[in-house]
Parts: sequence; structure tokens; C-alpha cells
Amino acid sequence: MPTYRAPTEDYLYLMHDVLRIEDQDSVPGMSDMTVDLTRSITDGAARLCEDAFLPLNQSGDEEGCHLENGVVRTPQGFPDAYRKLVDGGWSALTGPSEYGGADLPVAYQCMFLEMASSANLSLALYSALTGGAARALTVIGEDWMKAHLLPKLVTGEWAGTMCLTEAHCGTDLAQMKTKAVRQEDGTYRITGTKIFISGGDQDLTDNIVHMVIAKIPDETGTVRNELSDIHFFVVPKVLVDPETGELGPRNGVSVGNVEKKMGLKASSTCVMNFDNAVAYKLASHGKGKAAGMGGMFLMMNAARLGTGIQGLSQAVVALENAKAYTQERLAGRALTGSKYPDKVADPIIVHPDVRRLLLQADAFVEGARALNMTVANLMTVAEQSTDEAERQQADDLCQLLTPVIKAYETDKAFENVNGCLQVFGGHGYIREYGMEQFARDARVLQLYEGANGVQALDLVGRKMVSKGGRATMTLFGILDRFIKENADDDEMTPYIAPLKAGLGRLKDATGWLMNNAPKNFDNAGAASYETMNIMGVVILQWMWARMAKVSLAKLNASEGDPEFHKKKLVLARIWGEREVPNTAASLEKIKAGADTIMALEDAAFAV
Amino acid sequence: MPTYRAPTEDYLYLMHDVLRIEDQDSVPGMSDMTVDLTRSITDGAARLCEDAFLPLNQSGDEEGCHLENGVVRTPQGFPDAYRKLVDGGWSALTGPSEYGGADLPVAYQCMFLEMASSANLSLALYSALTGGAARALTVIGEDWMKAHLLPKLVTGEWAGTMCLTEAHCGTDLAQMKTKAVRQEDGTYRITGTKIFISGGDQDLTDNIVHMVIAKIPDETGTVRNELSDIHFFVVPKVLVDPETGELGPRNGVSVGNVEKKMGLKASSTCVMNFDNAVAYKLASHGKGKAAGMGGMFLMMNAARLGTGIQGLSQAVVALENAKAYTQERLAGRALTGSKYPDKVADPIIVHPDVRRLLLQADAFVEGARALNMTVANLMTVAEQSTDEAERQQADDLCQLLTPVIKAYETDKAFENVNGCLQVFGGHGYIREYGMEQFARDARVLQLYEGANGVQALDLVGRKMVSKGGRATMTLFGILDRFIKENADDDEMTPYIAPLKAGLGRLKDATGWLMNNAPKNFDNAGAASYETMNIMGVVILQWMWARMAKVSLAKLNASEGDPEFHKKKLVLARIWGEREVPNTAASLEKIKAGADTIMALEDAAFAV
Repeated sequence: MPTYRAPTEDYLYLMHDVLRIEDQDSVPGMSDMTVDLTRSITDGAARLCEDAFLPLNQSGDEEGCHLENGVVRTPQGFPDAYRKLVDGGWSALTGPSEYGGADLPVAYQCMFLEMASSANLSLALYSALTGGAARALTVIGEDWMKAHLLPKLVTGEWAGTMCLTEAHCGTDLAQMKTKAVRQEDGTYRITGTKIFISGGDQDLTDNIVHMVIAKIPDETGTVRNELSDIHFFVVPKVLVDPETGELGPRNGVSVGNVEKKMGLKASSTCVMNFDNAVAYKLASHGKGKAAGMGGMFLMMNAARLGTGIQGLSQAVVALENAKAYTQERLAGRALTGSKYPDKVADPIIVHPDVRRLLLQADAFVEGARALNMTVANLMTVAEQSTDEAERQQADDLCQLLTPVIKAYETDKAFENVNGCLQVFGGHGYIREYGMEQFARDARVLQLYEGANGVQALDLVGRKMVSKGGRATMTLFGILDRFIKENADDDEMTPYIAPLKAGLGRLKDATGWLMNNAPKNFDNAGAASYETMNIMGVVILQWMWARMAKVSLAKLNASEGDPEFHKKKLVLARIWGEREVPNTAASLEKIKAGADTIMALEDAAFAV
Repeated sequence: MPTYRAPTEDYLYLMHDVLRIEDQDSVPGMSDMTVDLTRSITDGAARLCEDAFLPLNQSGDEEGCHLENGVVRTPQGFPDAYRKLVDGGWSALTGPSEYGGADLPVAYQCMFLEMASSANLSLALYSALTGGAARALTVIGEDWMKAHLLPKLVTGEWAGTMCLTEAHCGTDLAQMKTKAVRQEDGTYRITGTKIFISGGDQDLTDNIVHMVIAKIPDETGTVRNELSDIHFFVVPKVLVDPETGELGPRNGVSVGNVEKKMGLKASSTCVMNFDNAVAYKLASHGKGKAAGMGGMFLMMNAARLGTGIQGLSQAVVALENAKAYTQERLAGRALTGSKYPDKVADPIIVHPDVRRLLLQADAFVEGARALNMTVANLMTVAEQSTDEAERQQADDLCQLLTPVIKAYETDKAFENVNGCLQVFGGHGYIREYGMEQFARDARVLQLYEGANGVQALDLVGRKMVSKGGRATMTLFGILDRFIKENADDDEMTPYIAPLKAGLGRLKDATGWLMNNAPKNFDNAGAASYETMNIMGVVILQWMWARMAKVSLAKLNASEGDPEFHKKKLVLARIWGEREVPNTAASLEKIKAGADTIMALEDAAFAV
């Protein structure tokens, strides 16, 4: 049975040594975020995840979810564990205090999400979208929703879902068919079928608040293929009296099916039938044709960061178990001569290729965690800083890095989970050892919230170029300054040199896109994935250079555990040696352009 | 439900246009291998695989294997389908005619293995090791085994297994504990437990011939930790009278457990208990300490080629289904403007990033198939050529390329199966669509027959350097000559230029290893995996350049289907543009050496 120990020390290091969140003076209240506070939160989270969530991960996978008489039954133990999550206040960490939240910076919620997901991804997912639903209602909810729905969502007593996908369309929402018809009383009635609804039904909460997008038909009653007809609705599973908040009758929402999946078997993925269901339209948000569904993006952006974190979480727990196995499993002798002559064979940690797999995974895990915390902190700055310029810059960077976190982290997570599984040899394929579950569970995250190819297109086609490429230029400026500031520090050379090389290639790719995409948009499409990969590698090298700087200072000052900081320096070099070289290959692929990719007729791909 | 159509045209192209096997005059009988013969074989194989094997693939995965009263029950339909395989003579394609085989070149067996594995990998595996067992008995079996066991194995009426792994050791066989005690009558009695035995038991054949390695204790009765004590034994499930060939009582062999696995659920992976089982020792084979178990390598090398082919097979069927999906699924519009304005949206084949995934998979699939056929043909030459120098060169190349086929092809297969799954978006994760089964089934092949990291070490530490690096130099010589021969052909430049670049990097890596491995063997260990990757990419670029040459000639002569040959040229360019750049990254990683990988103490990896 797999083990899990929450990375509490690493979180303390990131929040207080690297990010120094308590020094963020421009955000009111940040000076209260002390090391002691963080430690009490990480320790509490660790206890819940290690003791209550982890033991249900394998049994949940074996048992799965079941649809019984129209109701989803989660695996044994899930309702109790979920109750502990709610009672411990873990759902409410970052919610507004006026609705029962603890008002902490979003980084703490991200930290908890990683730990909970490492211990039991299926279980963690039941509460993962609730925060996004609460966020949407906080921004664009009506007063009665804030009074009666929001407090239940903030505490996690009720759960939220996100209902976008239909059988024939996911990314291309313009094709959506679910319709919302206005009633005389101002409410709507929604009819249609949504698929892939995580937690569409479950037996953990008394009510579920479905956040649904649907089309309002035109004057003739026709559902048109127009993005601008899509609006965003609240559809409670059990109706709530807007006046009193009391629960009323069941709404016209039912579960059509629970999907059988590759993994995440304890997370109910539902086909949801809306049959003249009572719905409340939310206000538009943002500008342009998609403003009617703009509120959904408030959920979606949080979900994309969350998905990246969930990906990371599987690499974390897979790595921990692979590390343990390499200490125990005896096979062969070190290439340089036996290191453990008293044993029948050396433990496999002596073999360079086994170490390579662990070190690559570790360099990814700790680098990505630093990125997640950095972006989580930027989200707080973007919302709460008293400095407008700082707010805008932070928001630009969040927008730019969100698709990278979602896609690059989930891709690398799957790669590294499989690397850790590989360490087990044939045992990695056997269910009992638990490694194969991490691989099956991690796989979906490359598909969730927009498949990774769509994220890459969002990065290259929107985020990098919007507002004249302002966010891209901001990022390059920050990295250039960081490189310049450390140029004369010889100790930093092993970390700055690969950052400089990678950044040079990222700029080269950006320049190539600026020259070649306008001529032929397919050049952007063909280059998008590798551009995202370069950005992911470079951003993590930046994280590693920042951590190296901090850990070098600690070592030079003889502060903290020297083994902890020496290991950081090794991992920082691993990223530079083993991942930054890939940016050269990516750049060459980008410059190959779209010609060969587009050379064949569509029909040449017919079977 | 997934579809499968066997790639019969591609096999005809490879065997008769590219390899021109019928012109291999140095091998007696090859001129009989006509296009018509090949077509009749591929067509028959296609019918069996498409009509009888494919329909049982998903149902077999759902049902799995069950252990009932000590007997393994395969899923419904498997016994009938296996019977068709035997009755059709598909197990006997390459067996010696004196034992009931059709005496065809090994390439035909490889072709059938790919098709059968694409259609139903679990089912195909039940016969996959039988050929290796037959081969071992042909070479080192006693007369009575040739008389009574071999004909049953050649036809597939009985199946063979390979029993190596024990719970505490796989690759490091010196640790093995299973012992074989000599009896007065010259037979042995084997006692011990083997794990991960594919087809260890099943209900498809009347008898199973277990090929087992075990240690003969020393004079004091002690089982020592010495490779030289390991010998190779035949252990029939049901005893066979050496005189008459009649079946006797059950041998002391039983199934301890059937493993629950990530995939391949219809293939029984057994824990096998040998309890004083009657065993017949086979003669030593080869030289050195491992000669006692040398006969096992006759099976193992065939199994490694087979595993590469099985990996390929999953990419083949995943790609076919992904292609079909991209024609049907409508989402968004082409970046350059709608290509199907009459449809509600364009099919997703218009998107460059979707095409990238398909084309990369296709360039891998057809390149790897060409490599498999090339090596299969070399195996025939190595055994049967009348020219001794040709035999030796062919054998050298087979030895060198076997670990590359096993590891590189199974790694790339898993990558490309996942790429094809990705094309389906969320549907790829749903069992009903079948894509996730291909991913689960393909995953084990990276672990089978020596995990891929072990293969890489075998390549770098043994195959590339044995006999003074003779095989490596032979390969470089062949590639240099090929490049030179085509240097003046402008039409070939797009295929020769990346081959030249990749080969240059492979030579550079080899030179680095020659300089740095002797100083510190860990440098070889740290470089092994990326060296294998470079070799895999370069060898497939060679295959593509060869195919490009053939297809250019066909196009210039207006022979054959121009669309078939134009597509080959596009795929050849894709490999050069999208895979050869990775060799630059691999080289940089190799040159980083082992220092950072070995920097931390073993204990730093403890959890």
C-alpha cells in the first residue's frame, strides 16, 4: 500500500524563505502570515490527508462510484472523510470571512489542494470546484445567492459543479444545444444534457449548486450557433427559497449515467439531464461576445490552476513511493564497485539511470510547486494590492502562466509518474503497489478543463499576444533583470547560464512567431505546443535559480538544514542539465513551421 | 467500440518494394517469397485478427482472467479464438517443416504478431512465447523433446512459458532461489516460486511447456548466489512420457495467484509454484558464466523483438481510431478560415496541433514497422545465409538493435498511444471508446523482458562495445555509405540531411562515452538512456530515408498509388523535423555526465 507524507517543510521554505509572503506590504494583512501560522496550517492539513484521505485512495479505486436508483454512492469512507474536510474548515481557507471563510491568501488553498490530491485525488475533486463556484457568486451573484448559497459553498457544506461540456462539444461551446427559456417571474427553465460533470451527483453534501452554461433562444425560439447567446446560470439540485434559504423540492436535474473511466474511479463523472430545471441567470462579466458566460471564466481560471496542482500532486506521491522502493529493492551492484558488500546486492538507488528518474521527477515536483505558489501569490496581489501598477502586472502574469501551469505541469506530471512507476519494474504494473493508479488518475488531467493542445493555443494565440504582448514583455523584463542582477555572482552561474540559454530560445521562438504567424496562422497552430513547452522549462528554470539563490544564502550563513539546501542546489542543476536542453529541440521543431504538417489533404487521414 | 484494419498494403510495400526479400539470393528459398504469397498470408492474417480477435479485446478487458479451483479461466471467446489461430497454422508460420511448421522467414511471424497484437494484445500474448520455447528446444533440446514436445509447440497445440522472475529478483538473476535437485535417473526436481509468468496457466491448450531457470545447489546442498549455478529446464505442466509422448499425471506445478494489473487483464500473469516438479535440464549454450542458462537467451532475444512489435501494435490501433475520430468530430474552424462552411464546425483534422499528434504517431508507426521487418530479415540472413561474412554482419546488427527495438519502440509506442488518446479529448479517458485500454495495455511493454533502463544499459555497456565495438562500427559504416550514395541526389536532401545530423550526434555521443566511461562507469550509466534514444531516432530516420528513396522512384516512374507514396514522403519529413531535433537535446544531456546525478548520498533519497 502506498505511503504519503505531506511536504510541509518545502511549503514553509517556499512561502517564507523564497516568496517571503509576510513581507508583501502592498497587500493588507499579509504581515499576519507568519511562519507559525503556516506551520499550524500545513501540519493540520498533513494530518487530515495522511490519516483520513490516503487510506481511502486504493479502496476507493477498487470500489468506484455506483449509481443506485438515480443517486450516486461514493465509496466506503468517503462521506466521513469529506465531513472531516468540512468540519476542519479546509474548504473555507480562502473564502471571504463575511460568508464563513478564513480569508487567507489563495496560496494556502493551493497548498491544501496539492496535499489532499496527493493523498486521494478522487476525494479531493469533490471539493475542488466549490471554491470556483463561490468565487463566481461572490463577484456576480445576486444578493439572495450571497445570503443563502454562498455561505454553504464557502464552508463546503454544499458542493459546486461546473457544467459546460455536451456530448458533441467541449472546447467549441458555440455548438452547445442546452437551452434556457425565460419565465415570467424572471427565472429560467433549462433543458438539455451535460456530460463529464465531476461530482454531478454524490452522497457527501445535502445540496449541489450546479453552475451551468446554456443558450437563450432567439425571439423565434431557435437555439442559434452563437457564442453571444450563451449565459451563465445557477441551478441548485434541491431548490432553495430565495427569501428564506430553506430547502424546497428537488429541481429537474438528474443523473443519466456515471462514466466508466481509466482512473479516478472514486470521482463520479456524471451525465446530467436538465429537464425544465429552475435556473437563475447570473450577470454578464467581462467584455465581448462571451460576456454572457464570462462568469464561467472566473471558475475556469481557478480550475486550470487547480488542475495543474492536481497533476503535480500525483507526481509527488508517486515520487515518494519510488524513492522508498529504491532504498529497499536490491539488484545488481554499483557500476563503480559494490557499495553495500554486506548485502546480497546493492539497493537500486546506486544505479545512475534510477537516480536520473527520481531526480528528474524531484526537479519537476519542487520546481512546479514553486511556480504554483508564485502564481497563487500573484493572484492575491492582482486582487488585493494597494498599488494599481502592481495589480495589473500581477494579473498579466497570472493570465499568461495559467495555461502553462495547466498543460505543462499535467504533461510533465504524467511523464514523471510513469518514470516513478518504471522504477518499480514489473511491480509498477501490479495494482497492489498503487503506482499504476497514480498513472491512471493523473492521465485525465491532461484532458480536464480544455485538453493541453487547446491550452497551448490559448497561450500562443491569446495570452502571449493580447494587449500588444504586454504580459510576454513583462515576463521577459523580469527574467532579464533577474539574469542581470546575478550576472556577477559566480556561485549562481550554474543556474543562470541555463536560464539565459532557455530564455534566449523562448525569445527566438516568440520572434519567429511574430514573423511567421501573421503570414499563415497555421504556423502558430503548429508551433503552439512546443512554445508552451519552452515556456514551461524556462519558467521552472527561473524558479530553480530563485531557489538556488535562497539556498546558497542559507548555506553561506549556516542557516537551516544544510542537507535540505544542498539538495535544492542539486535539483536546480538537474533541471538545467536535463530539461533545458529540450528547449533547443523545441525551437528547431517550431522553426520547421506548418508546411509539412499541413501538406496532406484531410482525406489522407481517413482510415 | 474501436476498429482495426490490418496494414496489409504497408507490409507488401516493406517486404517487396523496400526490403525486396525475394532478391536475397544468399538465403536459400527466399526467391519463393513472392508478392502473391505475402498477399495471401497478410490477407488471411487480417481476416483472423479483424474478425475473430478484435471483437474480444474490450470484452476480455472487462471480464479479465479468473482463478477457479486452481485453474485459470480466460475470458469468454478466448478458447475459440485461440483454436482458430492454431487451426489456421498461424503459430507455425516460421517453425521447421520437420516439426509441422511452414518454414517461412521470421518476418512473417513478426508481421502476424503485430496484427494479432493490435487486434487483441492479451490474446496474442498466449502464443507469443511458444515460438521462443520451440526455438530453444530446436537448438538445445534432447531428441525426445524434439519428438514429443516440439511438434506440439510449433503448431501451438501446446503453449510455452518463460519462467525467470522471482519476487525478490528480476534483472539480477544471481539472487534467484528456485532450486533444481538432480535425481538418480538424470532428471531434476524443481522447487520454488516464480512470478510474472505470462500464460502461466490458461484454458486454451491441453498442456503447457514451462521453460524454467533454476539453480543447482552445490555439493553441500546450498543454493549459492552465483550466476554459473543457474541452468535451464523444461517443466511440462502435464508430464509427457519421453518414450511414447503420451500425457501422464499432472506435474508439481500450480498457480499461486493471478495478478491484478493496470491492463492486459485478459492475459493471465501468474505466480507459479513449483513443488518438487519433474524437470529436464537442457544443455548449456554459449560461453561464460551464464552458459548454463544460455538457452534462455534464445527465447529472450526473440521475446525482446516481440515486445517491441507488441508496443508498436498498440500505437497502430490507437492511431487508426484517432484518425477516424478526427474526421468525425466537429470543433472550431481552421485557423486559416473555415474549410467546411456547410458544417456546423470543421472536423478537427484541420487543426495543426491535432495533425501533429497523428503525423508523429504515423511517422513512428511506419518507421518502426520498417525497422522490425529489417531486423527480422537480418535474423533470417544471420541464420541461413550461405555467406559467412554476411551472416556475421547480420548477427552483429541484430544484437545491437534488439535492445533499441525493445526499449525505444515501447517508449515511443506509449507516448504515441497517449498522443492518440489525447486527440479524443475527455472521451479518450472513457472506457467505452477503448483508447484508454490501449494506453493501459501498452504500458507494461516498457517493463517486460527487462525494464527499458536495463535495455539501455545492455546497449551501451554490452552491445555497442562488445568485440571492440564491431557492431557499432558496422552500423556507422552502413549509414555513412548510404549518406554518401545519396549525397548528390537533390530529391533525397530532405531525408539525408537529418540522417546526417542525427548520425553526427550519435557518433559524438559514442566518442564521449569512449572518453568518459572508462574514467567513471557511472558516466556510461547516466548516458545510457539518452544514447539509446539517439540511436532509436537515427535508425528510424535511416528507415525513412530508405523508404523515401523507394517512394521517390515509384513516383518518378508513375508506379503504384501516388497518394500512398506522397504520404510516405510527408511522414519521412515529419520524422526529420519533429524527432531528429531531439537528438541534439539528448547529446547535451549525455555530455552533462554523471556528476550531478551521483552528487547526493543514497540516504538523501530516503523518504
